[in-house]
Amino acid sequence: MKVTELSREELLALESELQAKYDAYKAKGHKLDMSRGKPSSLQLDINNEMLAMPLDSYILENGLDVRNYGGVDGTVEMRRLFSELVDIPMAQIIVGGNSSLNMMYDMMMRLFMFGTLGHKPWKDAGKIKFLCPSPGYDRHFAITQAMGVEMITIPMTPTGPDMDMIEKLVAEDETIKGMWSIPLYSNPQGIIYSDETVRRLASMKTAAPDFRIFWDNAYGVHHLFSENSIPDILKLSAEAGNPDRVLYYFSTSKITLPGGGVAMMAGGEATIAEAKKHIGIQTIGPDKVNQIRHAKYFKNAEGIRVRMKALAEQMVPKYELVLNLLESELADTGLLTWTKPEGGYFITVDTLPGCAKATVALAKEAGVVLTGAGATYPYGIDPRDTNIRLAPSYPPIDELQAAMELFCLCVKLVGVRKLLEA
Amino acid sequence: MKVTELSREELLALESELQAKYDAYKAKGHKLDMSRGKPSSLQLDINNEMLAMPLDSYILENGLDVRNYGGVDGTVEMRRLFSELVDIPMAQIIVGGNSSLNMMYDMMMRLFMFGTLGHKPWKDAGKIKFLCPSPGYDRHFAITQAMGVEMITIPMTPTGPDMDMIEKLVAEDETIKGMWSIPLYSNPQGIIYSDETVRRLASMKTAAPDFRIFWDNAYGVHHLFSENSIPDILKLSAEAGNPDRVLYYFSTSKITLPGGGVAMMAGGEATIAEAKKHIGIQTIGPDKVNQIRHAKYFKNAEGIRVRMKALAEQMVPKYELVLNLLESELADTGLLTWTKPEGGYFITVDTLPGCAKATVALAKEAGVVLTGAGATYPYGIDPRDTNIRLAPSYPPIDELQAAMELFCLCVKLVGVRKLLEA
Repeated sequence: MKVTELSREELLALESELQAKYDAYKAKGHKLDMSRGKPSSLQLDINNEMLAMPLDSYILENGLDVRNYGGVDGTVEMRRLFSELVDIPMAQIIVGGNSSLNMMYDMMMRLFMFGTLGHKPWKDAGKIKFLCPSPGYDRHFAITQAMGVEMITIPMTPTGPDMDMIEKLVAEDETIKGMWSIPLYSNPQGIIYSDETVRRLASMKTAAPDFRIFWDNAYGVHHLFSENSIPDILKLSAEAGNPDRVLYYFSTSKITLPGGGVAMMAGGEATIAEAKKHIGIQTIGPDKVNQIRHAKYFKNAEGIRVRMKALAEQMVPKYELVLNLLESELADTGLLTWTKPEGGYFITVDTLPGCAKATVALAKEAGVVLTGAGATYPYGIDPRDTNIRLAPSYPPIDELQAAMELFCLCVKLVGVRKLLEA
Repeated sequence: MKVTELSREELLALESELQAKYDAYKAKGHKLDMSRGKPSSLQLDINNEMLAMPLDSYILENGLDVRNYGGVDGTVEMRRLFSELVDIPMAQIIVGGNSSLNMMYDMMMRLFMFGTLGHKPWKDAGKIKFLCPSPGYDRHFAITQAMGVEMITIPMTPTGPDMDMIEKLVAEDETIKGMWSIPLYSNPQGIIYSDETVRRLASMKTAAPDFRIFWDNAYGVHHLFSENSIPDILKLSAEAGNPDRVLYYFSTSKITLPGGGVAMMAGGEATIAEAKKHIGIQTIGPDKVNQIRHAKYFKNAEGIRVRMKALAEQMVPKYELVLNLLESELADTGLLTWTKPEGGYFITVDTLPGCAKATVALAKEAGVVLTGAGATYPYGIDPRDTNIRLAPSYPPIDELQAAMELFCLCVKLVGVRKLLEA
């Protein structure tokens, strides 16, 4: 039923029908949360074996005792595991604590305070700007906002951020110092940057000599319906004469445990050497016990790939539930659009213009918490108010079903009201 | 034998005797390290039980799953354990990762980038200065140096840093923004700040309204020969109208594991609220699995106190070995002075003026690595070149004996050479 083509009378009838359903749902007193991209308890349980595993020896192959001080760039064993998994030379990898976001934040703080590789500290560079492909990850935008960076929204396309716009901006404006990106299964749309997008990012001319791309490969091995990969941007940027342009991040947050995983960064050799100097002053070394626990448990990259297959088996039915419900409830209504992602953690939808906030608010009123509308845009402002991020990972499947039924109801009710306003 | 009163002939005879002993020692090809305050392998082994302990449940009393995202100020359980141990209200405690130094560094970065409680960010405050009681902890000084802070050396006295000098300086100079301190069993001298010192620090007038004391209570429960305590500076400073003056740090690095322990910070309520806001942007939360492992293993503060007694039983014989050797070899020579610390991790000695660097270098040449001379002063420069930090914790007792024998030999040889120069 093409709701957008209904007459006023038909819309009024539909509204009162939907309102009745909504009231009935609300009366059930649900309390459901699909707001954040959190692993479910079942997914976390898979790790209990690792956490309980005896470690036998605490001495690394280089003789370091993981229990003691030292190891500014992490353990050799964990660097090797990551190196094999993400195909970056060990010498270009620093393994840290449990949060790659923390490593990004710290890098940003260092860029402001100290600058990088002889360039002026960003704190002394006047107003600076960052490119923010959007919809994107709210926690990236929160970092740049906290540091007073002006954020420029870059529209996303099916092949990644709008490269024509990016190339033009960075070539002209030397106050544009960097950009955020989630190149594989982007948060929230699940977009896969095309080979051409990656190559253009690696090789484009930038007015700022210290332009940096935060390459958050958070979902680098998080395949669901098909396995996809992106070109090696560190290699491409080095070949293009920009060896230190890319700051690469990855973690096991959604492989093992967000609350006890292992994160890494990678970059050009000079960048890594510089970062190690700073980190050597910042800390006595990361938690190496947890690193060796991960390294011993997974043994090699294949161990992690096997794990990702097991996690996908839990996740795919949730995605299918969401996609099937969207399809059956909303496909022909004209009220909602979405695409099916091949991996990652989210499904993104777009309502009619001006309906996202109201939809999220209506769902909340009936006990279903969604990601805040606007959260996927810089400053929390979605200019068209259409984008909603659905995070199917956390709720058990029956709760997800209940939450999604309400979501579809809210999309319709808000959509109908919007059409009646017109 | 009062070496300082020997005749030239006697000194020459002694020198060749010492040189022969030194050459013989060197020929043995020792490789000994007493440079850093690292726990020994035996001390670390006590924790293997904790690391292998099954955790049974991962759900906190507040319902949070430690394995998942969240908990910007750490787990309730670990905050309570620390609260009981260091006697600070839970609401004023943030529990982080494994490194309190990391928490200090991050706080310093925030003070520069954002300022605190409405005061101007330090990056915009022109040249700023820090008071550095010395000898002190080289890694504190490394942080202020990296951030371009001018460091002012404050002499230590048996009751803590020279308070007359500090009060005068902070009252007059608004560019003095803070100071470092290790109030109980100071690194490296083991000095215990007196009640009066703590009260004066809490209540003194400072020209800078955002003057901050980094109160690194690293050895807060690390008693050896007697149990000592210091007044509650957070309470005293609040009573004196300076509730946010003190930034308090503590960790289990030397209780459990430097490479897998748990660190905390505490401060005034406004400071903690502000820090939580920043940390909420910086990270997805600390490693909570390790926190709950610690909390379940120790159960309460008494559990940690029992642990500290066990650690002291390992450490005291090492201290006695060092102190006895210093006494028997050097007590009456006039070449070295030292005091016996009641707790902490170090024994500090002072050579004749101009002899510390040469002594450390000579020891190194014969295979014994000591903390670099000068490391205990800002910029690595000990103005009188007398101070050497001895770290008896790491080597097994037989290696410690061998290292200390050489050390005594080097003190004598360098001392005799210095006297011959005169």
